[in-house]
Amino acid sequence: MSDDASLIALSNIYIVLVEITHPGNIGAAARAMKTMGLSQLVLVHPKIFPCADATVRAAGADDILAQARVCDTLEEGIADCRLVFGTSARPRTIAWPRLLPNACAKMAVSLGEKTALLFGREHAGLTNEELELCHYVVQIPTNPTFSSLNVASAVQILAYELFNQVMQTEERSVSEHCPASAESMTLFYQHLEQTLIEIEFLDPTKPRHLMRRLHRLFNRAQPDDLELNILRGILTAIQVKR
Amino acid sequence: MSDDASLIALSNIYIVLVEITHPGNIGAAARAMKTMGLSQLVLVHPKIFPCADATVRAAGADDILAQARVCDTLEEGIADCRLVFGTSARPRTIAWPRLLPNACAKMAVSLGEKTALLFGREHAGLTNEELELCHYVVQIPTNPTFSSLNVASAVQILAYELFNQVMQTEERSVSEHCPASAESMTLFYQHLEQTLIEIEFLDPTKPRHLMRRLHRLFNRAQPDDLELNILRGILTAIQVKR
Repeated sequence: MSDDASLIALSNIYIVLVEITHPGNIGAAARAMKTMGLSQLVLVHPKIFPCADATVRAAGADDILAQARVCDTLEEGIADCRLVFGTSARPRTIAWPRLLPNACAKMAVSLGEKTALLFGREHAGLTNEELELCHYVVQIPTNPTFSSLNVASAVQILAYELFNQVMQTEERSVSEHCPASAESMTLFYQHLEQTLIEIEFLDPTKPRHLMRRLHRLFNRAQPDDLELNILRGILTAIQVKR
Repeated sequence: MSDDASLIALSNIYIVLVEITHPGNIGAAARAMKTMGLSQLVLVHPKIFPCADATVRAAGADDILAQARVCDTLEEGIADCRLVFGTSARPRTIAWPRLLPNACAKMAVSLGEKTALLFGREHAGLTNEELELCHYVVQIPTNPTFSSLNVASAVQILAYELFNQVMQTEERSVSEHCPASAESMTLFYQHLEQTLIEIEFLDPTKPRHLMRRLHRLFNRAQPDDLELNILRGILTAIQVKR
């Protein structure tokens, strides 16, 4: 999946903040969204917005704030969504179908249709009436003795899971490390053993487990060609200097 | 896993904040930690601490702030750690072994030994010298056009992955391999550098990237105490024989 395609998948996802009191949290949520490629912010009845505090905490994600849709009611904010998730950190009396963030992200990204993730008030979360508009409740696992997750942090975690999901779909590998060939490693071990004999660290009549231990250590490091050249350069310098 | 066992696994993990400028971020990081059951906060040379802004943003995680260890140097903060992870959002010229947050959490929790996760300055992150103390760099995947993740948000994501990992781990597997402490590694690198200068392989007036490359190689191998003794024994033999 190209970067363009990732952005399209994520542009179908609305982050909906319901009756947020502190504008700083709106800005922090916008920043959290943008770091993870999300762009669609919906604010339901925010106490104060726009606001300088929001812009400061957005720290460069001003475009998300400028494009944010402000609505009077939640129904209006999610009218065109096919799938709606509510987030919750506390257990509810009536059990909604519950998902972990990872499963929510998988569902939202694979659907490829307009999807809303709802985040509630700082102190009270979402009401039961608001949860009735949701297909699922996403429960972010937290410390049972301190589940007070900041609302922008909750946005950050879900946004991170969504971005991961898109990246995994892309199957992009970040590894660039290319270990040296087995033949190069054999030549290196011969050079190492010879040098250890010359400096009298290794007694060839009583080798014990020394070379085996060194094999294990350097095999674990999986040196690449450049690193192996450096190590052999060091061995040659030792041989020349003695 | 019982709550007690989870707390023990997480109490081995230090969240180390390096030269943070805004005390609000320290408070937000403490809150992020506590929601995910982490408790060990280390502050390396914070600009302002303690501070009311930190307490406000901690929002009930004051105990984490009160117990935080404040250090002058990073070396001091991680001296007893067996495994050190640096976090980074930007690509580096020399590629350190890189892990995704999830793989980092798996490694840290399964090791069950003192482990540090380092988070750098708000605008500049960690320096290359600080990364040299790390076994791995954890790269939080972000939007390539806006990777400006808030430091407390980065803590939140890693803390979330650690908590998930503990929740997933039914039985903690105790790894047989126990990497040497950061302090022992520092002493080894000093010995290595000194020896390379003595055999004239390293010109201290033109060090280039040699030591950085060797750090990367040996950190990847994660030598244990016995292996480090062998390596230092070899270094001493080279010094004696020349």
